[in-house]
Amino acid sequence: MSVTSPLGFDAAGIAAGIKASGAPDLALVVNRGPRQAAAAVFTSNRAKANPILWSEKVILDGQVAAIVLNSGGANCFTGPRGFQVTHQTAEAVGEALDVSAGDVLVCSTGLIGDQLDADVLVAGVHTATSVLSADGGDDAARAIMTTDSVPKTALVSGDGWSIGGMAKGAGMLAPGLATMLVVLTTDADVDAAGLDTALRAATRVTFDRLDSDGCMSTNDQVTLLASGASGVVPDAAAFTDAVTAVCRSLAEQLQADAEGASHNIAIEVVGAASEDDAVEVGRSVARNNLFKAAIFGNDPNWGRVLAAIGTTEAEFDPYAVDVSMNGVRVCHAGEPDAPRDAVDLTPRATHVLIELHSGDATATILTNDLTHDYVHENSAYSS
Amino acid sequence: MSVTSPLGFDAAGIAAGIKASGAPDLALVVNRGPRQAAAAVFTSNRAKANPILWSEKVILDGQVAAIVLNSGGANCFTGPRGFQVTHQTAEAVGEALDVSAGDVLVCSTGLIGDQLDADVLVAGVHTATSVLSADGGDDAARAIMTTDSVPKTALVSGDGWSIGGMAKGAGMLAPGLATMLVVLTTDADVDAAGLDTALRAATRVTFDRLDSDGCMSTNDQVTLLASGASGVVPDAAAFTDAVTAVCRSLAEQLQADAEGASHNIAIEVVGAASEDDAVEVGRSVARNNLFKAAIFGNDPNWGRVLAAIGTTEAEFDPYAVDVSMNGVRVCHAGEPDAPRDAVDLTPRATHVLIELHSGDATATILTNDLTHDYVHENSAYSS
Repeated sequence: MSVTSPLGFDAAGIAAGIKASGAPDLALVVNRGPRQAAAAVFTSNRAKANPILWSEKVILDGQVAAIVLNSGGANCFTGPRGFQVTHQTAEAVGEALDVSAGDVLVCSTGLIGDQLDADVLVAGVHTATSVLSADGGDDAARAIMTTDSVPKTALVSGDGWSIGGMAKGAGMLAPGLATMLVVLTTDADVDAAGLDTALRAATRVTFDRLDSDGCMSTNDQVTLLASGASGVVPDAAAFTDAVTAVCRSLAEQLQADAEGASHNIAIEVVGAASEDDAVEVGRSVARNNLFKAAIFGNDPNWGRVLAAIGTTEAEFDPYAVDVSMNGVRVCHAGEPDAPRDAVDLTPRATHVLIELHSGDATATILTNDLTHDYVHENSAYSS
Repeated sequence: MSVTSPLGFDAAGIAAGIKASGAPDLALVVNRGPRQAAAAVFTSNRAKANPILWSEKVILDGQVAAIVLNSGGANCFTGPRGFQVTHQTAEAVGEALDVSAGDVLVCSTGLIGDQLDADVLVAGVHTATSVLSADGGDDAARAIMTTDSVPKTALVSGDGWSIGGMAKGAGMLAPGLATMLVVLTTDADVDAAGLDTALRAATRVTFDRLDSDGCMSTNDQVTLLASGASGVVPDAAAFTDAVTAVCRSLAEQLQADAEGASHNIAIEVVGAASEDDAVEVGRSVARNNLFKAAIFGNDPNWGRVLAAIGTTEAEFDPYAVDVSMNGVRVCHAGEPDAPRDAVDLTPRATHVLIELHSGDATATILTNDLTHDYVHENSAYSS
């Protein structure tokens, strides 16, 4: 179950020598058609990596033959030379596959500010093209890992078609538009405009609501490639639902593998005046270090939840809010309710319910706790 | 050097029994006049504690006879009963001093969501009034401490007048308008309007630019009381400068004592198109957990600085930015410059210089690193 599960796709994942460890670091996914339609969403960070600058141009005509991804270096803030490395990588894929470099997307992930070696990348592309296979999806998923501890893949089947996916990401998890590196493939027969609509609808309620550490990446990209190899034109709503299901599965896998985390926290906001309000409230809590540290300590410190909500512009009356943790209402109408020790926060899965009583809108934000291991992983070495 | 250094003020700090530890937990500062002018700025958090709701009304006429402060409980999200506790505390001060309760400011700090015991507070007020003294400033500074490891006081002298101050705060350090609990006193002869102008000018460039952990408190209040006891009407600019100097000293003491911190980081943004842009850029970096963890690890990871800047709306070209750390320029025009190992981040005092090359405006944000001790202090027990 990965990007090669749908018909019409080959993939490879190899060790090109970008990572000093010798671990796999270059992935290639090729769309064999008959259709080569694509859509992508990119980070909204204004500091964009070179592969983002390149891929934003490639996607414009909705035609993509292949996507090449490397870990071991973000190729971000590496100047014109870094852009040239991205360009050379796409050219190498184009030559090897006999397609236009302008139909090749490039993604990179790793440390910001280090130059990649173009010769190593080009040699890696040649190796990857020589081992492309309809079973290569799992290798590809492994080759895009950075601080991930496990590869992340997903598969959802429709009526005669399917959607596969792979993702990487464990830190800098806070999307603006897209997040992390994600490649989705489908053999459904959908044109680029249809892919774009489905992908934006799906990412808006999945990756855009994952906010592990509040830090937005410079390299995020989510790509959806369609081969049309099933010959089936799907119902649009069913297709969007399937894309959303794949994205949700991958988002939950990213949350579960977030750097150093000991709790997966779902912050469910209900009774908001608007969906935007619900997202703003959920995100304010997800980004509050004191709340996140309290959850690490299994402390149902609801005062920190309310203090975070108070920093938003959302419509709410602080003295009407209810807060529950793992099913126990600890705050009712802005006052203490059940005693704190009635709450069991020892399970990894943590549910925080915030009832605003200001309307009917709702949203759930996924986040993680702030732990010693998070600090360790992000201070002990550069990433 | 504290709130009783200027003429016309008495103070006390006692153990009322609010804190289970038996440590001092109630402070009282009384303005003996002849003038009883005051100004105050309050947290912009929309979730306001009961003493904030009370004090916002007291300050309206610019007349304040006394301020009573307790640690050991924030009296926030404690409902109408909590407001009644604040009211009773002010009434007790008013009766003991023979002044109107409407001229008594109240501040509280500690855990959100716990009810305070009005009887304990009223008895504490009686004890405090019985030991009021012109030497009581240091006791008062100790009685407002929560997780602070040291009391914070300051004194600046003008031409025939002086300004004293005390502050508490070690977590939830991220101001919207004011921050933490701060009481400033002066024997200069200044009316309430003059105090308000000077205080807002001072806090805007001091407490408002301290952002230790991105978490805004529900109880922040900075109060400036004037007794006029020196008989000297100060030059307005000199007075504002002195208030600013006291606020800056206290802000730096708060930064130096921030929970778990191992670095005091000054993020200096220059070449911004506007001061607002400079503040937004500095604050985005100050709130980036990956940057803060890197500094803890003595890692000059400038890519995380640029990734943070990229999330702002500030005017800048990512490929024109320079970043220096402790005097070493590690990024020039968005590309790597000096090698990372040329930077020494072992000193506690850390300077990050961000040159935007978009204009002439500048601002410096003070923050701290993200450490194991921060996580420990904020997860191991409720605060």
